Amino acid sequence: MPVTQWWAEQAWRGGPGLDEGVLIETDGDRIVDVRSGLAPPPGAVRLEGVVIPGMANAHSHCFHRALRARTQDQRGDFWSWREAMYAVAGRLEPDTYLALARAVFAEMALAGITCVGEFHYLHHGRGGVAYAAPNAMGEALVAAAADAGIRITLLDTCYLSGGIGVPLEGVQRRFGDADAAAWARRAGALCPLAHARVGAAVHSVRGVPAEQMGTVAEWAAAHAAPLHVHLSEQPAENQACLAAYGCTPTQLLGNHGVLGERTTAVHATHLSDADVALVAGTRTAVCMCPTTERDLADGIGPARALTSAGSPLVLGSDSHAVVDLLEEARAVELDERLRSGRRGHWSAAELLRAATVDGHVALGWPEAGRLEPAALADFVSVDLRTPRAAGAGASHELAALVFAAGAADVRDVVVGGRRVVAGGRHQRIEDVWGALTDAIAAVTG
Amino acid sequence: MPVTQWWAEQAWRGGPGLDEGVLIETDGDRIVDVRSGLAPPPGAVRLEGVVIPGMANAHSHCFHRALRARTQDQRGDFWSWREAMYAVAGRLEPDTYLALARAVFAEMALAGITCVGEFHYLHHGRGGVAYAAPNAMGEALVAAAADAGIRITLLDTCYLSGGIGVPLEGVQRRFGDADAAAWARRAGALCPLAHARVGAAVHSVRGVPAEQMGTVAEWAAAHAAPLHVHLSEQPAENQACLAAYGCTPTQLLGNHGVLGERTTAVHATHLSDADVALVAGTRTAVCMCPTTERDLADGIGPARALTSAGSPLVLGSDSHAVVDLLEEARAVELDERLRSGRRGHWSAAELLRAATVDGHVALGWPEAGRLEPAALADFVSVDLRTPRAAGAGASHELAALVFAAGAADVRDVVVGGRRVVAGGRHQRIEDVWGALTDAIAAVTG
Repeated sequence: MPVTQWWAEQAWRGGPGLDEGVLIETDGDRIVDVRSGLAPPPGAVRLEGVVIPGMANAHSHCFHRALRARTQDQRGDFWSWREAMYAVAGRLEPDTYLALARAVFAEMALAGITCVGEFHYLHHGRGGVAYAAPNAMGEALVAAAADAGIRITLLDTCYLSGGIGVPLEGVQRRFGDADAAAWARRAGALCPLAHARVGAAVHSVRGVPAEQMGTVAEWAAAHAAPLHVHLSEQPAENQACLAAYGCTPTQLLGNHGVLGERTTAVHATHLSDADVALVAGTRTAVCMCPTTERDLADGIGPARALTSAGSPLVLGSDSHAVVDLLEEARAVELDERLRSGRRGHWSAAELLRAATVDGHVALGWPEAGRLEPAALADFVSVDLRTPRAAGAGASHELAALVFAAGAADVRDVVVGGRRVVAGGRHQRIEDVWGALTDAIAAVTG
Repeated sequence: MPVTQWWAEQAWRGGPGLDEGVLIETDGDRIVDVRSGLAPPPGAVRLEGVVIPGMANAHSHCFHRALRARTQDQRGDFWSWREAMYAVAGRLEPDTYLALARAVFAEMALAGITCVGEFHYLHHGRGGVAYAAPNAMGEALVAAAADAGIRITLLDTCYLSGGIGVPLEGVQRRFGDADAAAWARRAGALCPLAHARVGAAVHSVRGVPAEQMGTVAEWAAAHAAPLHVHLSEQPAENQACLAAYGCTPTQLLGNHGVLGERTTAVHATHLSDADVALVAGTRTAVCMCPTTERDLADGIGPARALTSAGSPLVLGSDSHAVVDLLEEARAVELDERLRSGRRGHWSAAELLRAATVDGHVALGWPEAGRLEPAALADFVSVDLRTPRAAGAGASHELAALVFAAGAADVRDVVVGGRRVVAGGRHQRIEDVWGALTDAIAAVTG
């Protein structure tokens, strides 16, 4: 395969600002060279707008997309929303799951997301009966990502209990394996592909009894795989954990080997100062999902304290109330402002690193999310010649990209050297609106 | 002028859902008939998407738009941000103010905003010297709105002190009249036009000494004009007011006749329960500006408590960190969720009423913001056939519009029976990006 040249007027190469006249050379699925200050060579593919590395959506439950706009007129809280979410979970089968995931991953591609971490717990058929192919559901997700042209880390999730000391009930039985050892056997049968890797997840301290957690952590360590876990999204989880175990969820995870450099704690909303010290001290990454945390009335987690103390920051669109990693990036900063009364907690470049390189590390793709030789050829162009982004001036264009642009401004998306989106249109799934409409109608009442 | 027929597949006529096949007939600048359930008649203008009434941006400082993306890498707070804002204020003259306002109002038109309330305090030349035409700056704003094709309520602002007991200093001297009587004489010389009305504003308890407030309130009453005021945006204002006057800003405004049915209190962030009761008990409207309140680290005001107790809710984009009234609408709900831990404080229809009919009432245009006979012919179409809005299903389309669509999805904008935006393009100002870029470059360092 010959070298391909891609040229953009501007690109972000990881520093505090943008480079001008950037030529990216790719060979197959890899970047082989990146240079700035060049005019477009004849034959180069011109990318429209500012080029950034592909973005990593580090926390996704793709089927929650079916609920967008469908629960907004309901009163209630996280727990009543969960009932609506379970109703969708109850209807999914491998074919409908594939169709829905393909459409949602296509929406992600259009938003400049080139890698998704799918926190996957809907493993089994109705009543919890295993499919003939035990990983039929996970394999549907992997196939959907291939169809949509993006990478996936399938975070196969261990989910054994409906609450601390409470058995799985109703639709939850579809989530459960017999125990963590059975989970490990099933997850171990999943094979990585060029576009797909496998990671592990402990659903939460609600979903996995403490004595089973170590098995999952050991599996992840043995496979050098990422390990993700929901942490303290709601105060009720903290209260139940304290009552049952006499400690916080953070302490419980720490005691059972779940925290550490390969681990990502998702939400981390309701933490004590000691919890913050423990999460950050173990270099556990934290995945903030601020548009979901707003939507589900979770609250605002101590993101700045965690990252100042040593946790890498990554981002997820989680329930997909919004699929826009740039909006997630600025929302982390803006919600920290609401929490603190102060501005300027992260620079635009720091937020963009969370959306790109650090997100990829948390998903086990350390060779992606950066514009440099030997990295995977995953990159995205964002149009800043819009009313939204106008007026920033040369020295603030990166801030305009992070604080004013969004998914609607993404023009080109290249994954592994292949153009998945061109001029804002998905090249394989022509009608993403129609695909979403049909796939969601098939699984909603 | 003959009757014009406009037809849309769907429209929101104020109820909990959307009507299908809606025909709007206009004669000159008025709607003369609205009917649902019809096929498009031959010769009707087809509007693309879901039609809603024109939106009212009830709180704008248009020149703050120059700061978008330019202060995001700064640390600090509201007060340090204000220094950057003052630097822009110091550079503006009638010609540059006109050019900037025209571009910003064009951005608003593209976002479906058909009426803006411009909280205008930059009255005088350098050093506070009056222009030969004493309202040269306000008239520039009125002309800019005409150029951009939208309505304006010029909320001419009385701003006499730099803090309680502190004289105006530096650039603030451009804001000040000699006293409230001098303000009233100058404001009284402003003439309404077909597209422009005049209202009054008390800047804040910081900007107007208590004994001067009554003059402004009386002027507004005598002119049956809207009266706006910044209220408790920052805790420091409350502390200064308590120290100087022995009461809260709300109480002070109440004691001096500033609250009431024609008044809109902007922000209302840091209120006591007694303040809430006083604001709502006087039927004072509250203008929430949540994207600005996030950006400036103001905090989250008690919007639900105020509106439950009787205050109409309206919305503003204020500093224009974002110009998207649909984003403001959902942000009020989402930030209330962060505050309360509960979901479902307002329905989509209630939020859309804030953005349309109630916003227009607060700006003194009670005959606008509704799709009904005799109303002004101001309406907007929003495309829901996007990946963002897909999947809501027939019974949740209004929620998709409010919770998932945005400024980028606005297709057609009609003001007074004339199409200002068609297919997402401004019909008079061809290159809004360029207009913003040039106008902002002219007034920034």
